[in-house]
Amino acid sequence: MEISNHQNSITQLFNIQKPIIQAGMIWVSGWRLASAVSNAGALGIIGAGSMYPDVLKLHLQRCKAATQKPFAVNLPLLYPSIHEHIASIIEAQVPIVFTSAGNPKTYTKIFQQAGIKVVHVVSSSTFAKKAEDAGCDAVVAEGFEAGGHNGRDETTSMVLIPAVKAAVQIPVIAAGGIATGKQMLAAMVLGADAVQIGSRFVCAEESSAHIRFKQAIIDANEGDTLLSMKKTVPVRLLKNDFFKKIHEAELAGATVEELQTILGRGRAKQGMFEGDLENGELEIGQVSAMINSIKPAADIVSEIWDEFNVVKNNLHQL
Amino acid sequence: MEISNHQNSITQLFNIQKPIIQAGMIWVSGWRLASAVSNAGALGIIGAGSMYPDVLKLHLQRCKAATQKPFAVNLPLLYPSIHEHIASIIEAQVPIVFTSAGNPKTYTKIFQQAGIKVVHVVSSSTFAKKAEDAGCDAVVAEGFEAGGHNGRDETTSMVLIPAVKAAVQIPVIAAGGIATGKQMLAAMVLGADAVQIGSRFVCAEESSAHIRFKQAIIDANEGDTLLSMKKTVPVRLLKNDFFKKIHEAELAGATVEELQTILGRGRAKQGMFEGDLENGELEIGQVSAMINSIKPAADIVSEIWDEFNVVKNNLHQL
Repeated sequence: MEISNHQNSITQLFNIQKPIIQAGMIWVSGWRLASAVSNAGALGIIGAGSMYPDVLKLHLQRCKAATQKPFAVNLPLLYPSIHEHIASIIEAQVPIVFTSAGNPKTYTKIFQQAGIKVVHVVSSSTFAKKAEDAGCDAVVAEGFEAGGHNGRDETTSMVLIPAVKAAVQIPVIAAGGIATGKQMLAAMVLGADAVQIGSRFVCAEESSAHIRFKQAIIDANEGDTLLSMKKTVPVRLLKNDFFKKIHEAELAGATVEELQTILGRGRAKQGMFEGDLENGELEIGQVSAMINSIKPAADIVSEIWDEFNVVKNNLHQL
Repeated sequence: MEISNHQNSITQLFNIQKPIIQAGMIWVSGWRLASAVSNAGALGIIGAGSMYPDVLKLHLQRCKAATQKPFAVNLPLLYPSIHEHIASIIEAQVPIVFTSAGNPKTYTKIFQQAGIKVVHVVSSSTFAKKAEDAGCDAVVAEGFEAGGHNGRDETTSMVLIPAVKAAVQIPVIAAGGIATGKQMLAAMVLGADAVQIGSRFVCAEESSAHIRFKQAIIDANEGDTLLSMKKTVPVRLLKNDFFKKIHEAELAGATVEELQTILGRGRAKQGMFEGDLENGELEIGQVSAMINSIKPAADIVSEIWDEFNVVKNNLHQL
């Protein structure tokens, strides 16, 4: 059986060996994780949304020192000091930027004029078409099962991937519910050109998630996450004490202001980075139910890639 | 390219040609739809949950007259006159029963002693194991994206199918988000032995859904359904005026009693069978966004089956 590297629209666009992308996640994916993933032939992403401008500069410097391969930065377009981040990304000659949470029209051309490829994260065909119209090089189609921030339509990967694929001409990267080679193959059967994997890489050795958060993911079962905070910004997280307070207030009909008071500030750092499992926000996908180990990122990449190829090559047995 | 019939654990268990099952749906799947699907080499199911005992008897009689092939009955275990339905099913020598919405322990053995195979519908690995322990012959793993009644864990097909497959030894039938051959193949890559398809067959010519409901499905886009009524019994439905009343009451913190008053009685019949698109309950899956035609059930079966085989046989190109 052949386990070859893979050439398609995404590997060519990013100049990588395997159509696997590690999601850029706040408080989790710094230079250590991103460079380890890129060195494994996939695409690593630094999550800039939780970094002060100086912190991002340091991570860019270290990531470039740690890998010769392409890596990317994830940039939420609502980030307060976005112009400083943009300047750092261009200065460091980062080849690819993944943008999310905002309008891709505003910044796509700025990056592309600096020779940077731009990929926008969407949760519907409508937003995918808008990203294509804004000139984006590719889109990430993020399903309802994904961890962290998500859309309001609640469309799952099984429906979203073929819908987005049918709506746009640019390459489609599937995200949400993918942690194994079988799930990667299913996503590509549905029309994806590559997959973006978040939750599985939270439990990489190189991720900066707190060890207690990693252990909570290993312990998680089906039904232990929920898409919550739908009145403010929908986010999928583990059902801990913090979640329960928010959820009970929502069920009782709390207003947006009341919810924001309960939410407070710094909850994601408190939970994911500092390991406060009771009072912190623990953003993770449904696929956490299937994650049972902490491993080096390179091992995660090769396990997914090997299973993808084995299942693909034996599909005639179905 | 070979488009052969398919032998696996499910086709052998049910004695059918193609591992495609038409979901038994209230107000939609009577003898006409079930017999048309079974005559096409898949498994048709009569939805008994909306039928009075005499109506089910008539549908069984007509279905047996319309097809020589196996067909099944879907029986919600909370049905008020369940003993009359069970007697009719045994008397008519129906070879397979799909049970849902209740405990499979109570009735599985009664059917099996009469030579009837029993399949239970579940929304989690935990319930799948309980069904296996109760002696069921197979389970349907129904993802969050499915139409109609659903579980509280909100686990999507991308995660649920491999999780259930890993949890039980009996065959697994995937449901939720499946209307095309690609989606069928993705489900089988994830571990399913067959697929159960509901929404696509609502728009079969032979379904008894009102033509206005069929047209509403054709008109539906992404985000036009939502899993609602989570405080009572979660159900996925089209966002019409009836949905909005329920949803706004839920957001305002309405009690279960208040919601039941708004819900009233007979809403599913009013919407799906009588075509009241404003005040009726229109149960349908997320995949309604991808359904664009009304066709004979046999054409739906062959389109899905042909696409499944074409994509499977060309997967080396991925």
